[in-house]
Amino acid sequence: MPHTLVLLRHGQSEWNQKNLFTGWVDVRLSELGETEAARAGELLRESGLLPDVQHTSVLTRAIQTANIALDVADRAWIDVRRSWRLNERHYGALQGLDKAETLEKYGPEQFQLWRRSFDTPPPVLADDAEWSQVGDPRYANLTDAEMPRTECLKDVIARMLPYWESDIIPDLAAGNVVLVTAHGNSLRALVKHLDGISDDDIAELNIPTGIPLVYRLGDDFMPLGPGEYLDPEAAAAGAAAVAAQGKK
Amino acid sequence: MPHTLVLLRHGQSEWNQKNLFTGWVDVRLSELGETEAARAGELLRESGLLPDVQHTSVLTRAIQTANIALDVADRAWIDVRRSWRLNERHYGALQGLDKAETLEKYGPEQFQLWRRSFDTPPPVLADDAEWSQVGDPRYANLTDAEMPRTECLKDVIARMLPYWESDIIPDLAAGNVVLVTAHGNSLRALVKHLDGISDDDIAELNIPTGIPLVYRLGDDFMPLGPGEYLDPEAAAAGAAAVAAQGKK
Repeated sequence: MPHTLVLLRHGQSEWNQKNLFTGWVDVRLSELGETEAARAGELLRESGLLPDVQHTSVLTRAIQTANIALDVADRAWIDVRRSWRLNERHYGALQGLDKAETLEKYGPEQFQLWRRSFDTPPPVLADDAEWSQVGDPRYANLTDAEMPRTECLKDVIARMLPYWESDIIPDLAAGNVVLVTAHGNSLRALVKHLDGISDDDIAELNIPTGIPLVYRLGDDFMPLGPGEYLDPEAAAAGAAAVAAQGKK
Repeated sequence: MPHTLVLLRHGQSEWNQKNLFTGWVDVRLSELGETEAARAGELLRESGLLPDVQHTSVLTRAIQTANIALDVADRAWIDVRRSWRLNERHYGALQGLDKAETLEKYGPEQFQLWRRSFDTPPPVLADDAEWSQVGDPRYANLTDAEMPRTECLKDVIARMLPYWESDIIPDLAAGNVVLVTAHGNSLRALVKHLDGISDDDIAELNIPTGIPLVYRLGDDFMPLGPGEYLDPEAAAAGAAAVAAQGKK
């Protein structure tokens, strides 16, 4: 029996809408984001692919997305696990900055490096900066070394994969359909692992918002085939929209 | 250091509004119920009494209440545990019946016995009846003996208290402020235990909806003083309204 894993990227947030770098800043879904989450729930319900356990980051926009989608799918009652290890990439000193202004100020090369470089993080965010998360009670259990001040995708993989192994795989192993509701970069990190994408090629991968992505996994918890979006047409359009982000 | 326990009864549901016996039927909050849940979140926020861990039943109206309240209190990210052991009392063959019609048909004595008797459950609900929960996937892990077909308060205590000991107390012992969002009768069962209320006197206890009830507990996880509502005036009015239920 293959294991079933469903990945879901949260819908548009208030800061996506304003075209700001968000990262660990805890903004809410926009109205469009709530609509996207409800649509994700309808897709789950229509597919008959019903999660038994859900994992989310500790960021409100992912939690809202999961709550809305599972409510629509009549699965609000399933078990819940949350971890900071599923959070969006920490965007360092870019958090709170306008994407278009940043592109204009630093040029397309530096901009694309910060957005998509595998191992070059943006400048660190000072602990006393306006958009720092140092001191936020939800991270009280992290050691100072675990608490990021900036991250590149490589850093996200380093803190996400241990959670995949310690917490998500056991739920899959127990026979559960597992839903992971998270963010563009924590999901790219997971898909990179599952699909064996190279450090170079991962720059080109864009995961659309609000469309469940389904993997069937073998006994080694690696995919038996490519992941499939529940609405492939909408997914292709959504991925193109993500790739165009930052442009005015 | 005393342990802090916060109890929250869900707000008005669609069937409370229609004056129907609900029990394990999975109805949603009414609009008023959603407003009550948001008010509960404001009370938590204003009191500075912020939960670290939440427990809910597996019924949507309790989950909605907790989600809304914690979202308003900016605590959507805390750990979540759910159990059928926190569910409302199973109302047996009364589930789905109109309370006022039932009162008229069976008379006030029988009606009050079904509503408030400690150890007399209503007639059992047949497994193939419209409002039976037998076969609902959320109860797939229950043994047939665990799956109720009707319950009196004594039965609720018998299935709730093991969860208090196995799951809630350990979270309190770890130093967490624990929020339990549940139902009139599962919370009456817990308050009966905490306050040492007799089998006779518990009939008179009515817990208002949507107002957090706070207990400080000692090392034995029993109260150091009486439980306190975060809005005592509204709580008194709410308890009176619950006591009047069933009357036209």
